[in-house]
Amino acid sequence: MLKLYSAPLSSNARRVWIALLEKQLAFDLIQMQLDGDQFTAEFTALNLMQRVPVLVDDGVTVIESLAILDYLEAKYPTPPLLPSDPGAIARVRMAEILTITEIQPATLPLLKRMVEMDVPHPVLDHAKDRITRGLQVLAGLLTPGPYVAGDGFTLGDIVAGTIIPGLPMFGIELQPYPNVLAWCDRLAQRPSWQQTAPAPEVVQAALPTIRKILSARY
Amino acid sequence: MLKLYSAPLSSNARRVWIALLEKQLAFDLIQMQLDGDQFTAEFTALNLMQRVPVLVDDGVTVIESLAILDYLEAKYPTPPLLPSDPGAIARVRMAEILTITEIQPATLPLLKRMVEMDVPHPVLDHAKDRITRGLQVLAGLLTPGPYVAGDGFTLGDIVAGTIIPGLPMFGIELQPYPNVLAWCDRLAQRPSWQQTAPAPEVVQAALPTIRKILSARY
Repeated sequence: MLKLYSAPLSSNARRVWIALLEKQLAFDLIQMQLDGDQFTAEFTALNLMQRVPVLVDDGVTVIESLAILDYLEAKYPTPPLLPSDPGAIARVRMAEILTITEIQPATLPLLKRMVEMDVPHPVLDHAKDRITRGLQVLAGLLTPGPYVAGDGFTLGDIVAGTIIPGLPMFGIELQPYPNVLAWCDRLAQRPSWQQTAPAPEVVQAALPTIRKILSARY
Repeated sequence: MLKLYSAPLSSNARRVWIALLEKQLAFDLIQMQLDGDQFTAEFTALNLMQRVPVLVDDGVTVIESLAILDYLEAKYPTPPLLPSDPGAIARVRMAEILTITEIQPATLPLLKRMVEMDVPHPVLDHAKDRITRGLQVLAGLLTPGPYVAGDGFTLGDIVAGTIIPGLPMFGIELQPYPNVLAWCDRLAQRPSWQQTAPAPEVVQAALPTIRKILSARY
């Protein structure tokens, strides 16, 4: 049986959870509490980076959400979540990598401010600029749509779709990008999104832990 | 003709350059100067994120180094730089994603210190811890070797191999990881590495520009 180590508020883990549901695979979900569970010797032996998600499948341990998604796609190819056309692959990967290297890291200073940590204004401005540009690129990828690679729902939608809909929480409005907003609504109608969405009260309750984790980060 | 927008010291662009050489593709190399070329209207129209690399191929524009690598692999599959076995794919992707989301971002505070910017000690310690853990994971991926996915040279080696050999420059020694060190030597013998390696004097001359770029970054 597949085993997914997750955490209630981890967008990275949620990606894998969504993919497992979309592929209708049976799995054990282990929900960790990130105020300490990740530092135990047992979990560190699974992932020295001490992060979720971790997938264990038949003796194979995979870390890093995008690596896990590609592993699942190769091992359990039905339904497919990757296209085969080079141009479509480029669009999927641009959505994935733009999310994890530009948009998601840029939410960190905004999250710090949200939990009332001190963040210099130029840093906030730079972060908002990166996110705004990223959103414009994503709006381009979603043209003509309805998904980033065109007709088919793919890993690009899963990865970007676990970060973009949460941007308004950080004061980034999506209204200027109507096709991005429509895509967020489209994703929100999928059972896999509904089943994995953290409840707002869980988010609120976690803010002190988030603050503690962030204060130890560069 | 393929067109690659690169920059002399960009590890991200170097990945694509190496892949183009390994696949023996003909291409135009456009070397930009990152003290301003990336902000021109012409380049911004190609990549709104204002970063290298950018690949233009027959009317298709691809940004983000890992997306470009996967595009090239799909469009020009010979020689292959991706395995097909799920476990091997997982290893390639772990090496790639670990590099771009853990090790590479953690070099940023170390680079800031190198150009004599002020970086708090806990931030430096956290960065070194992330890199050290990442190196241990990589040493695991390189067991048994000789490459991250086993016998075959892949995109995992290209992506990790444009960052790991440079770590000693930041005061991170590779001696504790003999198989990582041997792998660095193995890569350094490839013509694609030799042809794309920036000269030490180019690195030295670029330090003021690097400092300028970093001072505007979070």
